[in-house]
Amino acid sequence: MASSVPSTPVLKEELDIVIPTIRNLDFLEMWRPFFQPYHLIIVQDGEPSRTIRVPEGFDYDLYNRNDVNRILGPRANCISFKDSACRCFGYLVSKKKYIYTIDDDCFVAKDPSGKDINALEQHIQNLLSPSTPFFFNTLYDPYRDGADFVRGYPFSLREGAPTAVSHGLWLNIPDYDAPTQLVKPLERNTRYVDAVLTIPKGTLFPMCGMNLAFNRELIGPAMYFGLMGDGQPIGRYDDMWAGWCTKVICDHMGWGVKTGLPYIWHSKASNPFVNLKKEYNGIYWQEELIPFFQSLTIPKESKTVQKCYIEISKQVRAKLGKVDPYFNKLADAMVTWIEAWDELNPSGGAASDVLNGPAKAK
Amino acid sequence: MASSVPSTPVLKEELDIVIPTIRNLDFLEMWRPFFQPYHLIIVQDGEPSRTIRVPEGFDYDLYNRNDVNRILGPRANCISFKDSACRCFGYLVSKKKYIYTIDDDCFVAKDPSGKDINALEQHIQNLLSPSTPFFFNTLYDPYRDGADFVRGYPFSLREGAPTAVSHGLWLNIPDYDAPTQLVKPLERNTRYVDAVLTIPKGTLFPMCGMNLAFNRELIGPAMYFGLMGDGQPIGRYDDMWAGWCTKVICDHMGWGVKTGLPYIWHSKASNPFVNLKKEYNGIYWQEELIPFFQSLTIPKESKTVQKCYIEISKQVRAKLGKVDPYFNKLADAMVTWIEAWDELNPSGGAASDVLNGPAKAK
Repeated sequence: MASSVPSTPVLKEELDIVIPTIRNLDFLEMWRPFFQPYHLIIVQDGEPSRTIRVPEGFDYDLYNRNDVNRILGPRANCISFKDSACRCFGYLVSKKKYIYTIDDDCFVAKDPSGKDINALEQHIQNLLSPSTPFFFNTLYDPYRDGADFVRGYPFSLREGAPTAVSHGLWLNIPDYDAPTQLVKPLERNTRYVDAVLTIPKGTLFPMCGMNLAFNRELIGPAMYFGLMGDGQPIGRYDDMWAGWCTKVICDHMGWGVKTGLPYIWHSKASNPFVNLKKEYNGIYWQEELIPFFQSLTIPKESKTVQKCYIEISKQVRAKLGKVDPYFNKLADAMVTWIEAWDELNPSGGAASDVLNGPAKAK
Repeated sequence: MASSVPSTPVLKEELDIVIPTIRNLDFLEMWRPFFQPYHLIIVQDGEPSRTIRVPEGFDYDLYNRNDVNRILGPRANCISFKDSACRCFGYLVSKKKYIYTIDDDCFVAKDPSGKDINALEQHIQNLLSPSTPFFFNTLYDPYRDGADFVRGYPFSLREGAPTAVSHGLWLNIPDYDAPTQLVKPLERNTRYVDAVLTIPKGTLFPMCGMNLAFNRELIGPAMYFGLMGDGQPIGRYDDMWAGWCTKVICDHMGWGVKTGLPYIWHSKASNPFVNLKKEYNGIYWQEELIPFFQSLTIPKESKTVQKCYIEISKQVRAKLGKVDPYFNKLADAMVTWIEAWDELNPSGGAASDVLNGPAKAK
């Protein structure tokens, strides 16, 4: 490795695992050796009266829609309902430095040697070691064991940049859109690519929320998953929206976004016909959104993530409002999200205690 | 794969293999099954009177310094001497669409299943399938078998862009600079990363000439390896220089650069003390060169690679001449290189017959 790689484990006091769900969390059994040392924030989507069973022995807080409404009051309308976008409520109420979020249909994958992959540990390694957004290293992450910067990599850039986001991948069911699902229903991802790399500055990527970790103190306020699902004309673009906003803010702030390892085992493809309906507007609007984010510039004076995010919300209203009135509503929700963030996290980046605790806590 | 992947093999009429060397080419024995169907252009560096032995059965042209001088006349001074930068002479005299260049200390590597890697075949696949420079695909090359564009990848960008360069990697001895060699003399690259990816538009990378293929018709005139070695204050930056010029021109033209597979087995590390002397100025100047290339803009009117390259030469003179007078000499040589290219390739991209043939041909 190029320089010191983190050997300190991340403590329970530093990391929360956020899981959006509508069902019993039996999938946690498989994750027990890796997740049990940490605190879980479960965001129950849909009908709040339904009881979600959590396996014994896990330390968790569970928030349902009633809790969201109670804690956020009128600002609760920025949190999506009946869509996994609701997960970002967990980021809001966490008090920790790091977040790992995972879907409840994701299981422990195996590496090529047959060993169980501790996805969380790899994410922590990704987040604790620097990124290289300003110049591409052809041997991938230079901070990994057995790797380094190659000949021709400027020495002045070898310190790297703080890593804000670690984007993990999926074996088995790949994260395809509905049209691709329909065309290739049997395609499975069997290729284990043993790499972590920094997505260069100025480059956008499709951030999937299925297996994602981030430094909440750095980038938390940008991790808003938008307005999706119930009552909205769009779904399955929550993580994409968060990814584009996050990436342009990371680029502005000089922070890195890594992708690659770790893999999880994605067990089941969602229904492509349902997905097609959810995605339709997203697929269409995206053709305007990408040029918007590619050309978006944040003023130098915006020195906090909150200020950057408010700036983006203004530009969303000014430039995307004409694409569809939905974007005016989204711009409002972006502002509401930041207000909620600042209320629940008065110290700025790191969240302080949430005054109104969750309904069920252990 | 996302769309049609090339199944057509590249014919002998379409590809040349360029090898710079100062010694007998026994290493070709190992490559025989893969290279013998193609034509080799051997660029003999150093003392022209020395005889280079080429194993039986290969079809090749060998050019020594006398040939370079005879063919290029006064323009021969743009071709480096006593440095593997001389290899670009081979690009100049080739008449083919594609070039693969490899060092003579590179052997056939094995994939994780123990199978010999046909590096040339993988490069051809990389070059014949599109690149994705405008948006990052998290499952890497979407045109590979078993992969595709992930959810959130804009449909309008899924046609991709023409691929101009395929940059392969190295198992065993990694391509480290002298300081890193000195610090980590025993480090070996044992990680086989099963990926090909496009280096995004706007991102520079350290291009290594050890295991490199490119579409000569597209990008050939930019593949000038500079003034290095004998009589020059710098060495081991030939491929880097070519890589930076090539990348900004590819970005300007809308073409892609891929890196990753294939691997070759790099057998021996060069002497780090000798390398340190060669690299010293490069390491130092590079800190100015990277910002130069990062901020370099080529006017829209420059619609051919030659015009782009001349434009870069002007900016090298204007902005780097003050770093060291060497860059004025380099800017002159860049112009000379384009004159030589146009003379030997009067039809533009594709070279026509070289009037003055090589000294030894089969």
